[in-house]
Amino acid sequence: RPSSSGCRSAMVTMSQNQSYSASVNAEIEVHLKQAIPMRPPLEVFEPMNHFSFGAPRTTAPALCVAACELVGGQRDQAMAAAAALHLMRAASFTHEQLPLTDRPRPKFRPVTHHAYSPNIELLLPDAIVPFGFELLAKSDDPAQDNSERILRVMIEIARAMGSQGMVEGQYYEVERSQSEGEGLNDVGWIVDVCKKKEGGLHACGAACGAILGGGSEEEIEKLRKFGLYVGMIRGILHGVGRKEKGLETTVEELRNLALKELEEFKGGNLEAISGFVNL
Amino acid sequence: RPSSSGCRSAMVTMSQNQSYSASVNAEIEVHLKQAIPMRPPLEVFEPMNHFSFGAPRTTAPALCVAACELVGGQRDQAMAAAAALHLMRAASFTHEQLPLTDRPRPKFRPVTHHAYSPNIELLLPDAIVPFGFELLAKSDDPAQDNSERILRVMIEIARAMGSQGMVEGQYYEVERSQSEGEGLNDVGWIVDVCKKKEGGLHACGAACGAILGGGSEEEIEKLRKFGLYVGMIRGILHGVGRKEKGLETTVEELRNLALKELEEFKGGNLEAISGFVNL
Repeated sequence: RPSSSGCRSAMVTMSQNQSYSASVNAEIEVHLKQAIPMRPPLEVFEPMNHFSFGAPRTTAPALCVAACELVGGQRDQAMAAAAALHLMRAASFTHEQLPLTDRPRPKFRPVTHHAYSPNIELLLPDAIVPFGFELLAKSDDPAQDNSERILRVMIEIARAMGSQGMVEGQYYEVERSQSEGEGLNDVGWIVDVCKKKEGGLHACGAACGAILGGGSEEEIEKLRKFGLYVGMIRGILHGVGRKEKGLETTVEELRNLALKELEEFKGGNLEAISGFVNL
Repeated sequence: RPSSSGCRSAMVTMSQNQSYSASVNAEIEVHLKQAIPMRPPLEVFEPMNHFSFGAPRTTAPALCVAACELVGGQRDQAMAAAAALHLMRAASFTHEQLPLTDRPRPKFRPVTHHAYSPNIELLLPDAIVPFGFELLAKSDDPAQDNSERILRVMIEIARAMGSQGMVEGQYYEVERSQSEGEGLNDVGWIVDVCKKKEGGLHACGAACGAILGGGSEEEIEKLRKFGLYVGMIRGILHGVGRKEKGLETTVEELRNLALKELEEFKGGNLEAISGFVNL
């Protein structure tokens, strides 16, 4: 059942894809720098810049743009959503790193340098999340008549970041980090966390891109699944699963499942989006 | 210049207003209970209920409804925004109470009981904020053609909660709580915090109600100012200024300024909204 031809084609285009996502990421960064200028009060905007641009990059924003282009949309139609996705994840990442009184450092999380006090690390993400929604709301353009699409994308992003998305994945992590007896190499647990965190974020990113680009409901759902598998691969290879050996087969299965979702799409940038399975 | 007749009329209607805001608050609560049911996974929804309904009430949501009705709107047009305002403030309140490693308990904040671990108090508000935006986005109704109003309200709420609104007020508090030498009875500081926190929240609530109810730009701006003054009064009497004596004159001035903003409104529920200066 897996589409081996799609898989080969993805391998071939890996380097093209890296330049595709690098160029998309550069555009997203320009968009964000304009949205978050360094201006007074610097006590606010200096850390806001730090947390917004210092957080690890995820591929979900670039995937959002790729999905938009795949269904025939223009890159700029997805730019605000891509920027918002980056900001939301940067905010949730900052809270993940926040040292709390009685929280031992979870073993599966890298130790990060804290440039600011815990107070600032607590407060600023609380400002970044609404700001992400504001960016989206401001991308409303009567000339494009895109209000309904933007409102739908806001619901998508709210759910992906919320209590049954990112926060649920973080809850699984916290729960596990507090149960000393259990190891962290439980494959089922790793897959669950990756599904909720990176999986949910990328599923959302791809679906939002398809919505904003004017995709059909069928295209939106196919791209949502594609994003879910891509995100799970990311989580397994670079997130909570990165130290676990023996997930190669799972990753390969997820690649095949992902590429299968793309089979009915025709178009110029199919290669670009296929390559996300190998990023 | 202060409108003494408006002021007398507000005094007279104080008890009517209490029943007005009580009935509006009861409706907002019903709306929220439907939006946040107690359902599985209980690890998520039980604390979500706790933080959503256990946080101190603010008058901003009821003011949002009152402003909507004042400009001729229907109560249900403002209900999602009122619920979202309550949720956003509940989330930010929960983070204010979160014990951080090196944060001494600010003296001007009441000590609260912590029913959940700091991890949960950190994570759940991160889920509640997007949920508030989701509620708003879902109140989009093609039959009412209200998309533009909702998107505008989202921008208003994002700004009120963000880095130059609520978060800036919280930052002033944190900054002060860390500078041991200074007293907390600096009147200028109290007024600044009240302006950013309760002032900004109520200004936003009143402006959002006016936007959703179809008010003119002039009405929206008058109600925004009314809300700012009402919120500052709330902050001085019940928030960071509650232990400071000698602000009676400031409160009286704010009441007069607030009522002055209502002078040009005519209509049945003018009495209800006037009473917010005395709540």
